[in-house]
Amino acid sequence: MKRIWINAVILPMAEGGEVIPQGALGIQDDRITYVGPVPTPAELDTYDEVIDASGKAILPGLVNTHCHAAMSLLRGYADDLPLKKWLEEEMWPLEARFTRVQVEAGTALSVLEMIKSGTTCFLDMYDHMDTVGAVVTQAGMRARLCRGVIGIGSDELRENKFQEAVRFAAEWNGQADGRITTMLAPHAPYTCPPDYIRRFVEKAAEMGLPVHTHMSETAAEVEQNVNDYGVRPVEHLRRLGFFDLPSLVAHAVHLTDEEIDILAEYDVKVAHNPGSNLKLGSGIAPIPKMLKKGIRPGLATDGAASNNNLDLLEEIHLAALIHKGANEDPEAVPADTALRMGTIYGAEALFLNDQIGTLETGKKADFITLDLTGPHMQPLHDVRSHIVYSASRSDIQDVYIDGKAIMRNRECLTLDEEKIRYEAVQAFQAIAK
Amino acid sequence: MKRIWINAVILPMAEGGEVIPQGALGIQDDRITYVGPVPTPAELDTYDEVIDASGKAILPGLVNTHCHAAMSLLRGYADDLPLKKWLEEEMWPLEARFTRVQVEAGTALSVLEMIKSGTTCFLDMYDHMDTVGAVVTQAGMRARLCRGVIGIGSDELRENKFQEAVRFAAEWNGQADGRITTMLAPHAPYTCPPDYIRRFVEKAAEMGLPVHTHMSETAAEVEQNVNDYGVRPVEHLRRLGFFDLPSLVAHAVHLTDEEIDILAEYDVKVAHNPGSNLKLGSGIAPIPKMLKKGIRPGLATDGAASNNNLDLLEEIHLAALIHKGANEDPEAVPADTALRMGTIYGAEALFLNDQIGTLETGKKADFITLDLTGPHMQPLHDVRSHIVYSASRSDIQDVYIDGKAIMRNRECLTLDEEKIRYEAVQAFQAIAK
Ligand SMILES: [Zn+2]
Ligand SMILES: [Zn+2]
Repeated sequence: MKRIWINAVILPMAEGGEVIPQGALGIQDDRITYVGPVPTPAELDTYDEVIDASGKAILPGLVNTHCHAAMSLLRGYADDLPLKKWLEEEMWPLEARFTRVQVEAGTALSVLEMIKSGTTCFLDMYDHMDTVGAVVTQAGMRARLCRGVIGIGSDELRENKFQEAVRFAAEWNGQADGRITTMLAPHAPYTCPPDYIRRFVEKAAEMGLPVHTHMSETAAEVEQNVNDYGVRPVEHLRRLGFFDLPSLVAHAVHLTDEEIDILAEYDVKVAHNPGSNLKLGSGIAPIPKMLKKGIRPGLATDGAASNNNLDLLEEIHLAALIHKGANEDPEAVPADTALRMGTIYGAEALFLNDQIGTLETGKKADFITLDLTGPHMQPLHDVRSHIVYSASRSDIQDVYIDGKAIMRNRECLTLDEEKIRYEAVQAFQAIAK
Repeated sequence: MKRIWINAVILPMAEGGEVIPQGALGIQDDRITYVGPVPTPAELDTYDEVIDASGKAILPGLVNTHCHAAMSLLRGYADDLPLKKWLEEEMWPLEARFTRVQVEAGTALSVLEMIKSGTTCFLDMYDHMDTVGAVVTQAGMRARLCRGVIGIGSDELRENKFQEAVRFAAEWNGQADGRITTMLAPHAPYTCPPDYIRRFVEKAAEMGLPVHTHMSETAAEVEQNVNDYGVRPVEHLRRLGFFDLPSLVAHAVHLTDEEIDILAEYDVKVAHNPGSNLKLGSGIAPIPKMLKKGIRPGLATDGAASNNNLDLLEEIHLAALIHKGANEDPEAVPADTALRMGTIYGAEALFLNDQIGTLETGKKADFITLDLTGPHMQPLHDVRSHIVYSASRSDIQDVYIDGKAIMRNRECLTLDEEKIRYEAVQAFQAIAK
């Protein structure tokens, strides 16, 4: 099946790929086959379907590089508290009551929300991951999934969790027509003893999988790492061999210049969570310094309990704004860079950039269309600027993944919105105090 | 005409006024006559119209305390530059070509955008203010309008501008059924000589009008003030008598603790522009310190050329996020405070709090309804939190001003959206290089 969208503003986001003010995107089945000016009528005749996308931009689907989807059930629950208190006294006790039912309901709610805000691929780190895999499969999403393991408790418990994480990663890698890939993910240096982290590293090397963890989100956690292990988290993870593998760290807020150099040297990927870091009062990650050292951070929402939404376009907006303000530098993180962070840099962070992240011939047909006719988008001087600084999630019209329509005219075609809303409320009430 | 909205979540935003989970808002003509639980059927019978607002929140219309509406024509033009260069080399040369035509087209575009994002009242500081007044009148908006005067040029030019500002303020105060009020507004200490500012202060005192100006937006501007006049901008304006009148300053980013004390002592109102301050790299205003001293800042977008949208809900969101991150304090600017900054504190900043800013009996019927059924609003633990952290402009469904429907189901009833879009593009092209 060959289809082509014409007369749209095309943002390929490829290296050196300029915006095409009136262009076309052609696909065959699940792959991109054409990006360029609108073809001649004779060439258009070779397509099964020609779609007029006038008044729209077409860009790669957004990539959310760090999420705990099921936590949307706790959105707005116990807001405005410090991270440690919020996690230990509010989130963890409620999360301990999560069963497969809560994970299914929360993940479906999150996947729906992500689709409606233009995300086509996300990383999820949680529990009951078979259920997450099933939801992703049904929704038609693309995802990097990992069982996030907290290494506290008895040896038996920790061994069981380790085996479960490995079993899940092996079983699900390449599932859902290849849309699902996996990772191994010890939760964080402050929740996993060093030898436990090392076991994940060794297993991941054996399985040929990347590794993911939380790192240096708060100043307190960095201090604790120094107290417990004598070094800051970057050196700690480096010594454990974490960075010898393809590795992704979430947050990276509290870094010295030397730590940034180490991350750059080992080509460690970074998931930057501006909204969550701001809301929890964790701080502002040194993204301009990272960019100068050649690190290309992806963007992420973290779980909805700390954000409180899963809107990657908003993270792009925040990434473009907050570093300018915090550094009093209007040239920090320009619009184009922020848009790359939300697309191709995100794909790189998930080690999926050979498949997604740009609109280029041969890549997967994961793309979104965005309405350019709203009053906030006029006059249309600079499409990139308008998408980054002025657009909002509701401007996103259509979402395609693997060439398949997942949302059309803001209606999600793969999920039952009303059922999901109902089940999310039920699932929360079943565990509420 | 008596109308009542029932079964909605009501956020009165009044002092001590708690959220009403299932309540009602009654109005008669242009005034609020009832806020409370859903009345009995017999009481409902006394209304001409009963509207079921299930699944919606009702809150006071948002107040934008500092804008240059016509500048929307320059949205996204010459982004990501330092303030001085951006103003002097990019904005001012193009703005110099603005005629009544550009001001009409740009203001209409902005007013439409503000209505569609829930703003019912805004302050505008610009040129060709009779045209701005006419657009506001037609749109059914509420506004504080002031001719923003730059005091550079010949004595004659400055005298003409002064007279024009005074004439406009006198003629338009109380127009459009009282929806339009006025102010006097020398542009800034760095663009107006001290004796020129003093003339505005004296005239405003004589006319019984408040005064407005830009103050301490950038570090460079504060330094220049010290070089030129020997004192920082706060002391400079204090000595000129500016703070002896009801006064509103926009930005107030670069303040010492002593300056915050002075602003608190004189009850100076502050228009906080988080988006614009971030985007221009001006810095982050010390809002938590101001709040501690009893200053209640309003929120503002500034012009669309530096934001790049006029979405006050986004400013509420930014105000709730950035101070937590910048101060590493998750309790800085809680959700409820951010929502007050966007409503009642904004009304106070414009000296209109006896009329608008809360849902209270006797106040003007300026309110908005907001859809609570989106996936990003589930589960509905805390409506205030969800509106501040998770909602977006497209959740706003209806806008009422003076009891009159201005937008219903996201369709603006007073303005022709397509015509405005077309004319904005034409008006820009007429002045573009
Ligand atoms: Zn996380
Ligand atoms: Zn301004």
